[in-house]
Amino acid sequence: MLKVYGDIQSGNCYKVKLLLSFLDIEHEWLHVNILDGESQTREFLQKNPNGKIPTVEFSDGRFLSESNAILTYFSEETDYSSSDKFDRAKIAQWLFFEQYSHEPFIAVARFIQYYLGLPVERKAEYEALQIGGHKALALINEQLSLTPYLVGEQLSIADIALYAYTHVAHQGGFDLALYPSIEAWCQRIKSRPGYIAMA
Amino acid sequence: MLKVYGDIQSGNCYKVKLLLSFLDIEHEWLHVNILDGESQTREFLQKNPNGKIPTVEFSDGRFLSESNAILTYFSEETDYSSSDKFDRAKIAQWLFFEQYSHEPFIAVARFIQYYLGLPVERKAEYEALQIGGHKALALINEQLSLTPYLVGEQLSIADIALYAYTHVAHQGGFDLALYPSIEAWCQRIKSRPGYIAMA
Repeated sequence: MLKVYGDIQSGNCYKVKLLLSFLDIEHEWLHVNILDGESQTREFLQKNPNGKIPTVEFSDGRFLSESNAILTYFSEETDYSSSDKFDRAKIAQWLFFEQYSHEPFIAVARFIQYYLGLPVERKAEYEALQIGGHKALALINEQLSLTPYLVGEQLSIADIALYAYTHVAHQGGFDLALYPSIEAWCQRIKSRPGYIAMA
Repeated sequence: MLKVYGDIQSGNCYKVKLLLSFLDIEHEWLHVNILDGESQTREFLQKNPNGKIPTVEFSDGRFLSESNAILTYFSEETDYSSSDKFDRAKIAQWLFFEQYSHEPFIAVARFIQYYLGLPVERKAEYEALQIGGHKALALINEQLSLTPYLVGEQLSIADIALYAYTHVAHQGGFDLALYPSIEAWCQRIKSRPGYIAMA
């Protein structure tokens, strides 16, 4: 059976769980505690030399890492990708945006606040992250004021990837009430069959 | 005709130029000077609201941004992608690795040294970036000691994406002589028909 190594409280892992749930793909979830160093053991580094979660192990023993590569793999030829080449490219554009312009701000601010309890020595870094995080949220909100999902009329892995950390952005100090199109989009995603919560 | 907005000295832009050259795709290159704020003008933000290069404009007026999404688009159904689903996923894995675990260290260190002249107020940040950069280079070197290209026997957009900033990593203070498999790979890429240099 497919194995997923991850921590459901990590948005990068949760996004994989959410897609597998929407697609009803059976899998075994193996919890990895990164704060306890479980992603840096010799055993884990054989699964993913970069020491990051999520990492999936296929039944033939092959491994795949990088959350958005995992989403891309499982969404191929499903309703969560697109049959249109340009739309697939726009989905990829949002996936790379997520990893470069969204996650490094929102997920890291959330990590500092929610996991570490906002220690005083990381307060300046936390404040600096707010700027990039709000820029990313504004860009998402702008697109969602034009279309119900990030790439047109249909929910795709672009939405799943960006939903993961966005819907818990308040845990990193971001007030989503400033972004009404994001709030409505979150509700649309939560109401879909197969949805599972992060907690 | 296809238009590419970019700066050839930026690895993220150069990687697009290199793929288009390998594929012999005709295009117009429009230089954007980010240091002069040209990616933040109202006119440019209409092309890419995130204010980043590269951004491509198709002949029908549609835009696509995020360098690795652009590579993915143009490589589809070519020798620079793969007909194997798992190999396509491994290519995507390296593309996301590049944007999260490689570029933010190597490209930023290079920017501080090569573009800004290593100002004293950014020396500590520069030193910190060396650690993540060397970790990324070691991971690439490890894979390239096993296979001639990052995903098997054939050059793909994974190689093009990672080559872009890796082959100029010395401009960010990284000594590639520490990574013999990377040096050999760089030579293999440079010797291919259609190769064009960054400068």
